[in-house]
Amino acid sequence: MTTLNQSIAQALIKYRHLSQISQENLADLADIHRTYVSQIERGLKMPTLAILFKIAHALQIKPSDLIKEIENKYDEI
Amino acid sequence: MTTLNQSIAQALIKYRHLSQISQENLADLADIHRTYVSQIERGLKMPTLAILFKIAHALQIKPSDLIKEIENKYDEI
Repeated sequence: MTTLNQSIAQALIKYRHLSQISQENLADLADIHRTYVSQIERGLKMPTLAILFKIAHALQIKPSDLIKEIENKYDEI
Repeated sequence: MTTLNQSIAQALIKYRHLSQISQENLADLADIHRTYVSQIERGLKMPTLAILFKIAHALQIKPSDLIKEIENKYDEI
Protein backbone atom coordinates (compact mmCIF):
# COMPACT_ATOMS: atom_id res chain seq x y z
CA MET A 1 0.00 0.00 0.00
CA THR A 2 1.48 3.34 -1.00
CA THR A 3 0.88 6.47 1.01
CA LEU A 4 -1.22 7.89 -1.82
CA ASN A 5 -3.48 4.83 -1.72
CA GLN A 6 -3.82 5.35 2.04
CA SER A 7 -4.73 9.02 1.59
CA ILE A 8 -7.35 8.17 -1.03
CA ALA A 9 -8.77 5.45 1.25
CA GLN A 10 -8.99 7.79 4.24
CA ALA A 11 -10.58 10.61 2.24
CA LEU A 12 -13.18 8.30 0.71
CA ILE A 13 -14.10 6.74 4.05
CA LYS A 14 -14.43 10.20 5.63
CA TYR A 15 -16.75 11.54 2.93
CA ARG A 16 -18.78 8.33 2.75
CA HIS A 17 -19.32 8.48 6.52
CA LEU A 18 -20.30 12.15 6.27
CA SER A 19 -22.89 11.12 3.66
CA GLN A 20 -24.02 8.35 6.03
CA ILE A 21 -24.16 5.74 3.30
CA SER A 22 -22.83 2.20 3.16
CA GLN A 23 -20.22 0.90 0.71
CA GLU A 24 -23.08 -0.89 -1.05
CA ASN A 25 -25.17 2.28 -1.36
CA LEU A 26 -22.17 4.19 -2.68
CA ALA A 27 -21.44 1.45 -5.20
CA ASP A 28 -25.05 1.55 -6.42
CA LEU A 29 -25.14 5.35 -6.62
CA ALA A 30 -21.79 5.54 -8.42
CA ASP A 31 -22.57 2.57 -10.67
CA ILE A 32 -19.40 0.74 -9.70
CA HIS A 33 -18.89 -2.67 -8.13
CA ARG A 34 -19.20 -2.92 -4.35
CA THR A 35 -15.96 -4.91 -4.21
CA TYR A 36 -14.20 -2.05 -5.96
CA VAL A 37 -15.35 0.46 -3.30
CA SER A 38 -14.09 -1.89 -0.61
CA GLN A 39 -10.75 -2.31 -2.40
CA ILE A 40 -10.26 1.46 -2.70
CA GLU A 41 -11.12 1.92 0.99
CA ARG A 42 -8.53 -0.71 1.90
CA GLY A 43 -5.91 0.97 -0.29
CA LEU A 44 -5.73 -2.00 -2.64
CA LYS A 45 -6.87 -0.26 -5.81
CA MET A 46 -5.80 3.01 -7.38
CA PRO A 47 -8.90 4.62 -8.93
CA THR A 48 -8.95 6.37 -12.29
CA LEU A 49 -10.25 9.92 -12.62
CA ALA A 50 -13.44 8.49 -14.13
CA ILE A 51 -14.08 6.54 -10.92
CA LEU A 52 -13.22 9.59 -8.81
CA PHE A 53 -15.78 11.66 -10.71
CA LYS A 54 -18.44 8.94 -10.30
CA ILE A 55 -17.78 8.63 -6.57
CA ALA A 56 -17.80 12.39 -6.02
CA HIS A 57 -21.06 12.69 -7.95
CA ALA A 58 -22.59 9.91 -5.84
CA LEU A 59 -21.43 11.65 -2.63
CA GLN A 60 -22.73 14.99 -3.96
CA ILE A 61 -19.35 16.67 -3.57
CA LYS A 62 -16.98 18.21 -6.10
CA PRO A 63 -14.21 15.92 -7.34
CA SER A 64 -11.76 18.74 -6.52
CA ASP A 65 -12.94 18.77 -2.89
CA LEU A 66 -12.27 15.05 -2.62
CA ILE A 67 -8.81 15.63 -4.15
CA LYS A 68 -8.15 18.49 -1.70
CA GLU A 69 -8.85 16.12 1.18
CA ILE A 70 -6.50 13.54 -0.39
CA GLU A 71 -3.81 16.23 -0.83
CA ASN A 72 -4.10 17.25 2.81
CA LYS A 73 -3.85 13.67 4.04
CA TYR A 74 -1.00 12.96 1.63
CA ASP A 75 0.97 15.97 2.92
CA GLU A 76 0.53 14.78 6.52
CA ILE A 77 2.00 11.34 5.92
CA MET B 1 -13.50 9.44 -26.55
CA THR B 2 -15.72 10.38 -23.63
CA THR B 3 -16.35 13.97 -22.61
CA LEU B 4 -14.39 13.40 -19.39
CA ASN B 5 -11.36 12.23 -21.38
CA GLN B 6 -11.69 15.39 -23.51
CA SER B 7 -11.84 17.60 -20.42
CA ILE B 8 -8.76 15.92 -18.94
CA ALA B 9 -6.92 16.29 -22.24
CA GLN B 10 -7.78 20.00 -22.56
CA ALA B 11 -6.82 20.75 -18.95
CA LEU B 12 -3.50 18.95 -19.24
CA ILE B 13 -2.61 20.67 -22.52
CA LYS B 14 -3.50 24.06 -21.03
CA TYR B 15 -1.34 23.63 -17.94
CA ARG B 16 1.53 22.07 -19.90
CA HIS B 17 1.53 25.05 -22.26
CA LEU B 18 1.43 27.44 -19.29
CA SER B 19 4.52 25.67 -17.95
CA GLN B 20 6.08 25.96 -21.42
CA ILE B 21 7.33 22.40 -21.44
CA SER B 22 7.09 19.71 -24.10
CA GLN B 23 5.33 16.36 -23.72
CA GLU B 24 8.78 14.80 -23.47
CA ASN B 25 9.88 17.14 -20.68
CA LEU B 26 6.66 16.52 -18.80
CA ALA B 27 7.08 12.77 -19.17
CA ASP B 28 10.64 12.99 -17.81
CA LEU B 29 9.67 15.24 -14.90
CA ALA B 30 6.65 13.09 -13.98
CA ASP B 31 8.56 9.85 -14.52
CA ILE B 32 5.94 8.48 -16.91
CA HIS B 33 6.24 7.35 -20.51
CA ARG B 34 6.12 10.02 -23.21
CA THR B 35 3.60 7.95 -25.17
CA TYR B 36 1.33 7.95 -22.13
CA VAL B 37 1.35 11.77 -21.95
CA SER B 38 0.49 11.89 -25.63
CA GLN B 39 -2.32 9.38 -25.17
CA ILE B 40 -3.84 11.36 -22.30
CA GLU B 41 -3.64 14.57 -24.35
CA ARG B 42 -5.45 12.84 -27.21
CA GLY B 43 -8.13 11.55 -24.84
CA LEU B 44 -7.14 7.94 -25.44
CA LYS B 45 -6.14 7.05 -21.89
CA MET B 46 -7.92 7.63 -18.58
CA PRO B 47 -5.25 8.41 -15.97
CA THR B 48 -5.27 7.10 -12.43
CA LEU B 49 -5.01 9.44 -9.46
CA ALA B 50 -1.37 8.36 -9.05
CA ILE B 51 -0.63 9.67 -12.56
CA LEU B 52 -2.59 12.86 -11.89
CA PHE B 53 -0.51 13.51 -8.76
CA LYS B 54 2.74 12.87 -10.67
CA ILE B 55 1.72 15.20 -13.50
CA ALA B 56 0.57 17.96 -11.13
CA HIS B 57 3.83 17.69 -9.20
CA ALA B 58 5.82 17.93 -12.44
CA LEU B 59 3.80 20.99 -13.49
CA GLN B 60 4.22 22.49 -10.01
CA ILE B 61 0.49 22.86 -9.49
CA LYS B 62 -1.87 21.30 -6.97
CA PRO B 63 -3.68 18.17 -8.16
CA SER B 64 -6.93 19.82 -6.98
CA ASP B 65 -6.28 22.82 -9.25
CA LEU B 66 -5.89 20.50 -12.22
CA ILE B 67 -9.13 18.74 -11.22
CA LYS B 68 -10.90 22.11 -10.88
CA GLU B 69 -9.93 22.92 -14.45
CA ILE B 70 -11.20 19.50 -15.57
CA GLU B 71 -14.49 20.08 -13.68
CA ASN B 72 -14.96 23.45 -15.35
CA LYS B 73 -14.32 22.04 -18.80
CA TYR B 74 -16.51 19.01 -18.08
CA ASP B 75 -19.41 21.27 -17.03
CA GLU B 76 -19.09 23.26 -20.26
CA ILE B 77 -19.43 20.26 -22.55
